[in-house]
Amino acid sequence: MNLSRCYTIADLQRSAKRTLPKMIFDFIEGGAEEEATLRRNRSVFSEITFQPQYLRDVSNRSVSTTIVGTRVGSPLIVAPTGLHRIIHPDGELAVARGAAEAGALMIAGGFSSYTLEEIAGASSGPLWLQIAPWRDRDVVMGLVERAHRAGVLALCLTVDTPVVGLRERDLRSGVKLPLEPTPTQVFDALRHPRWLARWLGARDLEFANFRSLRRAGGERGAGSMAHVTHDLIDPSKTWEEVRWLRNVWRGSLVIKGLLRTDDARRAVDEGADGIVVSNHGGRQLDGAPPTLEMLPSIVDSVGDSVEVFLDSGVRRGTDVVKAIALGARACLVGRPFLYGLAAAGQAGVTHSLSIISNEVDRVLALVGVSRLDQLDRSLLRVPSEWGITSSPVSTDTPVPEHAEEGFD
Amino acid sequence: MNLSRCYTIADLQRSAKRTLPKMIFDFIEGGAEEEATLRRNRSVFSEITFQPQYLRDVSNRSVSTTIVGTRVGSPLIVAPTGLHRIIHPDGELAVARGAAEAGALMIAGGFSSYTLEEIAGASSGPLWLQIAPWRDRDVVMGLVERAHRAGVLALCLTVDTPVVGLRERDLRSGVKLPLEPTPTQVFDALRHPRWLARWLGARDLEFANFRSLRRAGGERGAGSMAHVTHDLIDPSKTWEEVRWLRNVWRGSLVIKGLLRTDDARRAVDEGADGIVVSNHGGRQLDGAPPTLEMLPSIVDSVGDSVEVFLDSGVRRGTDVVKAIALGARACLVGRPFLYGLAAAGQAGVTHSLSIISNEVDRVLALVGVSRLDQLDRSLLRVPSEWGITSSPVSTDTPVPEHAEEGFD
Amino acid sequence: MNLSRCYTIADLQRSAKRTLPKMIFDFIEGGAEEEATLRRNRSVFSEITFQPQYLRDVSNRSVSTTIVGTRVGSPLIVAPTGLHRIIHPDGELAVARGAAEAGALMIAGGFSSYTLEEIAGASSGPLWLQIAPWRDRDVVMGLVERAHRAGVLALCLTVDTPVVGLRERDLRSGVKLPLEPTPTQVFDALRHPRWLARWLGARDLEFANFRSLRRAGGERGAGSMAHVTHDLIDPSKTWEEVRWLRNVWRGSLVIKGLLRTDDARRAVDEGADGIVVSNHGGRQLDGAPPTLEMLPSIVDSVGDSVEVFLDSGVRRGTDVVKAIALGARACLVGRPFLYGLAAAGQAGVTHSLSIISNEVDRVLALVGVSRLDQLDRSLLRVPSEWGITSSPVSTDTPVPEHAEEGFD
Amino acid sequence: MNLSRCYTIADLQRSAKRTLPKMIFDFIEGGAEEEATLRRNRSVFSEITFQPQYLRDVSNRSVSTTIVGTRVGSPLIVAPTGLHRIIHPDGELAVARGAAEAGALMIAGGFSSYTLEEIAGASSGPLWLQIAPWRDRDVVMGLVERAHRAGVLALCLTVDTPVVGLRERDLRSGVKLPLEPTPTQVFDALRHPRWLARWLGARDLEFANFRSLRRAGGERGAGSMAHVTHDLIDPSKTWEEVRWLRNVWRGSLVIKGLLRTDDARRAVDEGADGIVVSNHGGRQLDGAPPTLEMLPSIVDSVGDSVEVFLDSGVRRGTDVVKAIALGARACLVGRPFLYGLAAAGQAGVTHSLSIISNEVDRVLALVGVSRLDQLDRSLLRVPSEWGITSSPVSTDTPVPEHAEEGFD
Repeated sequence: MNLSRCYTIADLQRSAKRTLPKMIFDFIEGGAEEEATLRRNRSVFSEITFQPQYLRDVSNRSVSTTIVGTRVGSPLIVAPTGLHRIIHPDGELAVARGAAEAGALMIAGGFSSYTLEEIAGASSGPLWLQIAPWRDRDVVMGLVERAHRAGVLALCLTVDTPVVGLRERDLRSGVKLPLEPTPTQVFDALRHPRWLARWLGARDLEFANFRSLRRAGGERGAGSMAHVTHDLIDPSKTWEEVRWLRNVWRGSLVIKGLLRTDDARRAVDEGADGIVVSNHGGRQLDGAPPTLEMLPSIVDSVGDSVEVFLDSGVRRGTDVVKAIALGARACLVGRPFLYGLAAAGQAGVTHSLSIISNEVDRVLALVGVSRLDQLDRSLLRVPSEWGITSSPVSTDTPVPEHAEEGFD
Repeated sequence: MNLSRCYTIADLQRSAKRTLPKMIFDFIEGGAEEEATLRRNRSVFSEITFQPQYLRDVSNRSVSTTIVGTRVGSPLIVAPTGLHRIIHPDGELAVARGAAEAGALMIAGGFSSYTLEEIAGASSGPLWLQIAPWRDRDVVMGLVERAHRAGVLALCLTVDTPVVGLRERDLRSGVKLPLEPTPTQVFDALRHPRWLARWLGARDLEFANFRSLRRAGGERGAGSMAHVTHDLIDPSKTWEEVRWLRNVWRGSLVIKGLLRTDDARRAVDEGADGIVVSNHGGRQLDGAPPTLEMLPSIVDSVGDSVEVFLDSGVRRGTDVVKAIALGARACLVGRPFLYGLAAAGQAGVTHSLSIISNEVDRVLALVGVSRLDQLDRSLLRVPSEWGITSSPVSTDTPVPEHAEEGFD
Repeated sequence: MNLSRCYTIADLQRSAKRTLPKMIFDFIEGGAEEEATLRRNRSVFSEITFQPQYLRDVSNRSVSTTIVGTRVGSPLIVAPTGLHRIIHPDGELAVARGAAEAGALMIAGGFSSYTLEEIAGASSGPLWLQIAPWRDRDVVMGLVERAHRAGVLALCLTVDTPVVGLRERDLRSGVKLPLEPTPTQVFDALRHPRWLARWLGARDLEFANFRSLRRAGGERGAGSMAHVTHDLIDPSKTWEEVRWLRNVWRGSLVIKGLLRTDDARRAVDEGADGIVVSNHGGRQLDGAPPTLEMLPSIVDSVGDSVEVFLDSGVRRGTDVVKAIALGARACLVGRPFLYGLAAAGQAGVTHSLSIISNEVDRVLALVGVSRLDQLDRSLLRVPSEWGITSSPVSTDTPVPEHAEEGFD
Repeated sequence: MNLSRCYTIADLQRSAKRTLPKMIFDFIEGGAEEEATLRRNRSVFSEITFQPQYLRDVSNRSVSTTIVGTRVGSPLIVAPTGLHRIIHPDGELAVARGAAEAGALMIAGGFSSYTLEEIAGASSGPLWLQIAPWRDRDVVMGLVERAHRAGVLALCLTVDTPVVGLRERDLRSGVKLPLEPTPTQVFDALRHPRWLARWLGARDLEFANFRSLRRAGGERGAGSMAHVTHDLIDPSKTWEEVRWLRNVWRGSLVIKGLLRTDDARRAVDEGADGIVVSNHGGRQLDGAPPTLEMLPSIVDSVGDSVEVFLDSGVRRGTDVVKAIALGARACLVGRPFLYGLAAAGQAGVTHSLSIISNEVDRVLALVGVSRLDQLDRSLLRVPSEWGITSSPVSTDTPVPEHAEEGFD
């Protein structure tokens, strides 16, 4: 599908599905077990409606904001995901360039298929690096030092994978890394010639960062993602690990994967600068709540002490506006830019982020504000079951003060 | 489909779908983005049920009412929509005649394809004119003067389009105005010979009012509806524009597109005579709430100071009765009369309005009242989540006083 | 389908659908407008669950009860419906015999196709007669006298048809009475040879009672059911009509079609002996609430002064048990016995009633009671939205006293 | 389907469906009447979501627990079901061996197709025996003595079958015991050659325990399950039967099939050691509530005086974790191990139990605990409609004390 005919993320998703071998598309698309959380991540956004205000001056709008002190052109953050080269040979380099072009901050994945230095070299925008509670602190220390030299602004510690969720699609497809194709998988690849041509034309099939991490983990040969992660991640790690990391890393620190207010406050106590409310895109615990529903209480529990970000399920501008109105600073997107990468490499990544940013801009006008910091809960209608008490959903809300600016 | 076999608006919708090229049907039918608001506009009506009362004298019923002081034979108002000639060459003239025959007030659309004077000439019933916050006040002043001369009773200012909603169907079909057919569209037209014959047989394909507005906006050549509207509408306009309009226009003033109580009260403060609770038929902000749900609090917030009308989603007599029982004075209908126009020109317009009016009449009898002003909330069961407190939904409601008339 | 293979009402429904011309099946099956009330009449029963109690002596069970003082073998009442001969030539005679065999009280329909005297002659069980607020009191007086002579125990006054609901299926099929077949209808009949053979073999195609009523109404020739009813029923009639009827009729009086507590109390005040909570099987006002939901407040509002019956949607024994536990004395069933009549005449009527009665018997055992009068709300779980306050749904309900009997 | 390709219980279910004649699969799979309770047994689990906690040391996890004083390796209990030999010739022997291998306690069914002594001989794990309120106390006394000699730890008295539920699938398939094949059933069997080969190859087609029970019940020849049960079970039995049994049986006593708090407390008063909250897998009373919803109030009503188990609908590890967090000690599984038995005999039984146990282990890690006794309601989000008051669902729950262990 021609990129200019892709008007929405759903269009890019269809394009990616056509382009990629089923095994790889399912690896991106799938969630844990029965995918209930995956589905709910989408449906939860429709439970909230807007209370738009009209006849405000919305002629000068901006979707730019600051994220942990860094000015960015978009409220979208490229979520940490791994192994982009199995989607497109330009992999993380295309993502870094595409994100920068779209004004979006990028979080390089711990399991990247290019080295951190290569990614940092390609990126002209702000860059964070994702890590996890690796078994070996020497591995972490090595990354901390490389990250510092590469200009990484923040480390993003993913905490929701003490073990890997049961991703049934991957069990059924038999996906392993490095790719060791079975006959079924070869047949699958042959039916997707566009992907195959890219793959065969790539000069270098190494998965740089991922390889070196695996060597650190001590394993050789191919294995499922679950096996690889089990080798590397230590499920005995506790908040003590955050305290240690806080001491050895001088940049910003963001904790990703929290869903409880007590965990959020603990993160603040341990010195985090940001929290990502995430259920890992529905890939870890099937039955985890949708993040949007957990967001308001977490925002309320930490106050202004840290920035809170929302991950999992964001596909449209209205999603982003709802999350920010509920207190998120910005939203992580994962699958959307991977669809774009599959569809058209770097241009597809930029296109995917621009689709959502443009939608955010339009929605700002339609709810009657000009800037992201003018969004608040008075512009939303939240179901009473959500129990949001600090800013009750009233149909009789006074106009928020900041929104009065520019009237008359 | 023979008009006499069209018993419901859904029948007329099917007929219109068969008659019109897909591009044009979708232009009428579509909503913004994922069309969640569009669907909810329909489903919301079924959340409310009736508490009918029996053994009342309902032998002499009437569906007539007054709208901003004008006596009308129907509680239906022809909503402002544009470019009727792309549906049927008689366009707004057929609508004006058909509405008058059905006893319904008509709001001529700002983007009409006949001139206001032509429409007023065809109409033997009450006529309003829709405008928007046009960039150029001279354009508005010109319309104000023409409206006065043409006997327009009220100006209806649409405020919910500071920018145009993302209508994906139009993006995909590539519809532009004036119609500049692509090969696909020609093929589409050829498959709808009834529409094509009408179109080719029309002597004059000008879109009078729309053309002159576009010239005022400065643009030439074909463009999407979004482009056209962007050229004409000024998103910097605020309530100041209402104040100015109130001063230059001596007729009635109705504000269309409000969804908040504070905006409704502001409209009252600025001198409006009526408010249309509308989400633009789901065509602007996907995620806007269904209007029926917002209606009661808006009615309560403005009291008797203005009349409140309901727009968006009305297709049946039960919808109208529910809206009026919740406090609406009358209901706007848009797509229904366009279906009728597509099906059979003027006769189809009358038929579409009569279907709903006849249903209203029957429902009055079945809930046990004779006149629209006897409808109130005690005849409804509203879900408790709606939080209507001024007239609690009780299963133990005393018989409303006015309903006692005619007993014994 | 062999009757012995019909285990449920749904089986009989399928059999009836196969047997009857579509026009006639739809005439039985259809509801008003979009059939929302029709569907909700069924789904409402699943909103309530049981709180069964075990280890009670349920070895001697009975489903018999008394209805307005008459001992019956079943808590099912044959609802008043008309024109049974278009389904089966034995018509109301088969129904009367089948109902008596099943121990069920029958309400003869006002539009019956055999005369009241013929029905009474065939019936060996208790018989009521349905009337409506006919235009002409002489017609009513004639019926009152005939009913008295025929041994009718109660008159059942249907009040929810001041006008006839919009039944779209009938509009589309063009059904008229007497049947004046169009070519399409002839073709329909030819495709249902079992029904056609019955029809052609019937000696007498008169619709006795219906004919005489129509003559009283003054109309000749064929007309839709809506037209026929309009000719006969006077929408100006009020509670005064009930007062008059109460004076001229010495038997019991039951008002059918009430959905409000104030109307129910008015019925008590006017001397009714029973109230049927009914929405006319979803055939009158689309958007009328499901009767089960209205039942508890109506039961509570009238106390023990009258018996309350539930109509509309009953298909299974669990439905009956739920209704009785919420305070109904018995349940009317309409379509179920008509399905049975279509499937197998008198035997089918008995079978249909026996299916439900046997289910009631089984459910009594499974919820832990032996008699219908041991059912109460403590055996149910009712959604809190229903707002039943007099017998709060608690998961900690003390064992009802009557249920203690037979312990140890 | 190869057992190694069966990753979930749903996979085993598909395998069983392919392997078994329809009549037998439906006998296992079916529920009462419209199967509403059967479906709700599954859907209820998705109403509850988790509030997972992270950065806890979850490196040493265990799913073992004690059940009425017996240490077991799994929180799963093999539910009492009958006639396993119609599924696989190894029948209950395969189940006993497979359960022991998986570390699960087994409840031998009263209608087993091997004798209790044969089952006890095959089992190397803990064994309970299910009985019902048999008509003849001599039969029960005989079982009590045989159970004592066979080393049975507890009797499990099923109380929810005073009569047998209406299982429509069995009515339609005409299943009878012993199997007396009709032509349709022979055809069904021929289409399932794997099952047929097993069946024909079995040396001994007797249903030992079931036969002897039937002889005790006095019936000869084939009959439906409903008939067989009617012959054996006495619906007049009350709590007096529990009192008597408590006196004659010196082992533990568990009452299965309770759904009310008053019944649960009565069981405690009569000396029960455990209670199984069960709706008989949706096979008895259609409209019985889902057990998960009844669990919390029953747990709260009996306090620590007995152990409470959850039956009906458990298919995944998340289900088990939710039930235990709500207060259950362990969960019964029925159909899952029958699917495994059908798929692969003893190995299939073990596989089915291991699938769920492994899922439980993973979920423990993902919600942040190491042992089953660390699960409590603070890790769940329960809908407010459930009305759980003793441990309110808060998004601001303090970390449970026991979960603090092992931190830092």
